Amino acid sequence: MLRLRPDVAEPSAAARAKALTLLGRRLGASKVLTDADACERYSSDESEAAPRVPDAVVLAENENDILTALAVAREAEVPLTPRAGGTGRTGGAVPVAGGIVLVVTGMNEIKEIDRRERIAVVQPGVILTDLHAAVEKEGLFYPPDPNSLVGCCLAGNVAENAGGPRAFKYGVTREYVLGLEAMLMGGQRIRAGKRTAKGVTGYDVTATLVGSEGTLGVFGDITLRLIPKPESVMTLMVLFDDVHQSGRCVGEMIAAGLVPRCIELLDSATLQAMRDAGNAINPAAGAMLLIDVDGDERTCEKQAERVAGVCDDVGALEVLVAQDAAQRDRLWAARREMSVAVRRLAKHKLAEDVVVPRRRVPELLDRVYRCAEEQGVRSLTYGHAGDGNLHCNFLWNDDDELPRVDAAIEQLFRDVIDLGGTLTGEHGVGVLKAPYLPLEQSAELIALQRDIKRVFDPQGLLNPGKIFPTSGHGPC
Amino acid sequence: MLRLRPDVAEPSAAARAKALTLLGRRLGASKVLTDADACERYSSDESEAAPRVPDAVVLAENENDILTALAVAREAEVPLTPRAGGTGRTGGAVPVAGGIVLVVTGMNEIKEIDRRERIAVVQPGVILTDLHAAVEKEGLFYPPDPNSLVGCCLAGNVAENAGGPRAFKYGVTREYVLGLEAMLMGGQRIRAGKRTAKGVTGYDVTATLVGSEGTLGVFGDITLRLIPKPESVMTLMVLFDDVHQSGRCVGEMIAAGLVPRCIELLDSATLQAMRDAGNAINPAAGAMLLIDVDGDERTCEKQAERVAGVCDDVGALEVLVAQDAAQRDRLWAARREMSVAVRRLAKHKLAEDVVVPRRRVPELLDRVYRCAEEQGVRSLTYGHAGDGNLHCNFLWNDDDELPRVDAAIEQLFRDVIDLGGTLTGEHGVGVLKAPYLPLEQSAELIALQRDIKRVFDPQGLLNPGKIFPTSGHGPC
Repeated sequence: MLRLRPDVAEPSAAARAKALTLLGRRLGASKVLTDADACERYSSDESEAAPRVPDAVVLAENENDILTALAVAREAEVPLTPRAGGTGRTGGAVPVAGGIVLVVTGMNEIKEIDRRERIAVVQPGVILTDLHAAVEKEGLFYPPDPNSLVGCCLAGNVAENAGGPRAFKYGVTREYVLGLEAMLMGGQRIRAGKRTAKGVTGYDVTATLVGSEGTLGVFGDITLRLIPKPESVMTLMVLFDDVHQSGRCVGEMIAAGLVPRCIELLDSATLQAMRDAGNAINPAAGAMLLIDVDGDERTCEKQAERVAGVCDDVGALEVLVAQDAAQRDRLWAARREMSVAVRRLAKHKLAEDVVVPRRRVPELLDRVYRCAEEQGVRSLTYGHAGDGNLHCNFLWNDDDELPRVDAAIEQLFRDVIDLGGTLTGEHGVGVLKAPYLPLEQSAELIALQRDIKRVFDPQGLLNPGKIFPTSGHGPC
Repeated sequence: MLRLRPDVAEPSAAARAKALTLLGRRLGASKVLTDADACERYSSDESEAAPRVPDAVVLAENENDILTALAVAREAEVPLTPRAGGTGRTGGAVPVAGGIVLVVTGMNEIKEIDRRERIAVVQPGVILTDLHAAVEKEGLFYPPDPNSLVGCCLAGNVAENAGGPRAFKYGVTREYVLGLEAMLMGGQRIRAGKRTAKGVTGYDVTATLVGSEGTLGVFGDITLRLIPKPESVMTLMVLFDDVHQSGRCVGEMIAAGLVPRCIELLDSATLQAMRDAGNAINPAAGAMLLIDVDGDERTCEKQAERVAGVCDDVGALEVLVAQDAAQRDRLWAARREMSVAVRRLAKHKLAEDVVVPRRRVPELLDRVYRCAEEQGVRSLTYGHAGDGNLHCNFLWNDDDELPRVDAAIEQLFRDVIDLGGTLTGEHGVGVLKAPYLPLEQSAELIALQRDIKRVFDPQGLLNPGKIFPTSGHGPC
């Protein structure tokens, strides 16, 4: 399924040839892949964005390799797209105009975990789940937990400002990045930020780089803040009549001052997909919340009790408290596998990662259902209800359904903005949402960001076609 | 005491006259002050930076007034310095090249506190302590608590990325700013960020503005994240032989996974100043930690117990747990008044707000004591030991001591960088630290920030002379 190839200037044949020559000369064949099979493997990510085969793939082993690749792109004037785990959901790692893909997965050393400073220093290609395991062995905790955690890398997490269920209590990646090394298109190797808990010297260049989707710089070492690992976690599975009831429940939990680790919502269509996959779920249930609480054992128990109390008060159908770690894992495995399970329901799926003020989640869902029905498009929604961050999935099999899917998606985005929300909570804008950016942001704010982009990348060669709308696409 | 007037281009007499004419015409006499007394009142902040009387003071009542003042500055080509509470400690609100001071304290409405979304929307001139009171009445909590909280405004807190003791557990202002309205020199009125818990659309322009010290834009409405108010707080006062013992204690607390709300350090000279002011403190004590723990009542008690246990284990001289709110308030009042009390010890005082990795606090203090002794300068230090963020005070009476004070300060900054730290944890760079910026940041990183500044303020008229070094000053 090819979608949304942005109008980005393509490098000339001469420029591409020059780039290949320079890469070969400066990095050597072991670090530069140009054969068709290898290039093909780096043509897409885990989104529905149209693949594009790059001219060359650089496997960086260190910061100098990164600087060399950037210099070649600059000198030859070819685009360069940085890539870490390649698990992105909006096409951020797709080299939409060809050129060089710069892969940092080989730089995967956890360089330091310091219990007394509560920091970790990692190379950009460290896989998130490896970091989790390493810091938890030291009694520490790195909260961000996007669904892709077994394959995504820290560089990608930082580039997209990744979240995950635990963001409800602990915030997203930006809350944990103290400092960053970044290689820029101009050849600079800058160290932004700090290794200390506090630090306000100069502008927050680190924060400007976090969430910049690979368009401002290529990351080297990343310094992360860690927190103590919570002693215990308890999981509750709660069934409701419908999303309105679950929405009231979320509102009451917040109003009561409760701070669960996560509050995950599964809507009626999602529950049906789970039933179809063989899970026994009360047929009366039209919505589910999966709720984790954490802390020391007693705090956990007390919080679980209070959460269960709120659920009872709003008239939940069933409240199940996981009795042991195994039961907990089973509940979460089902949630984690949801994304894959949904993909099996139809040939194609687009998961739109939107956010609305949390009290407006049911209202948004009503609108989504109505619109999907009008368009005759199959949809199902799950996500991080505590944050108002939903993953609305649209499913289709035949390309002739696509105009209706596109109409449903555009209506979703318009509804999200109308309800005071934002187009993306954790997946980023990438290729797929770039045409819709003007729905959320003013022309002046977009122009300002383009100017910031030019400061970092005057030639516009670093990951072109991302974030900002290019002419001729979408509604804007 | 005049210190560090930066070399900044002064506006011509014609430009100043034009600005006054335009301000009078567009804003009217009630919003524009030009008499000598009024201008004098806006010539300085709470730092030792040299005062400079502006040509005019604009008292903004709304965003249009801000845009008008910015347009006048742009058209007449005169500098404009935004000002909120004027409580800054590094000269950020001093109009070092004259021109217009733009005061936002009249825009002081708390526009919204939403318990279910846990957000507040405030105008830029809301006083911090007023926000604290308003949100706590709703069972919510806004953690940042700089010492100036009865006089400082949210706009200044955001501009400086203010911290305070509670930052140890809860982080600094940037962790709580979801979105910002900002008026720019080009006449744009941008809405950056979001009202939702999550949101990663585009670059994090909000984070770029937070901590930009009034050099990138003038803030309108600020949208803040709130958290539930902790049920209880307990305070421990712990006395140690010396800062090395207190440093070991901090390290052990961190290693044990404890997260007190704050860990404040008072060094030997500070304790002596407290004794001199009539406080009865064990004469054997060479350092004090003031520690708050919070949470529900039982969590508090358990944490206090564990903290006390760690203190005993490292051999603390005395561990006092405040028995009631009154005792708690007395302990904290002494800490809060420290800054004022220290000012009474000598005619002049410079409080340098530096950060080192927390385990290196004792090492930094040893270096400070040695250097102060060598230079014959009186020093005392207190601050946020949990964050490694210290306020090193240098005291003097006669101007002929100043070269030695300057030498001690420069040595302090060099030591801080040598120990892996940063020049400022919460006060900002402003005028006073601008000459030292190159000690911490590379020429490339500074050049990049100057380029970002130019995107927001191409003529260099917004709060000139701040953050970046100007020629002819300091060691760099």
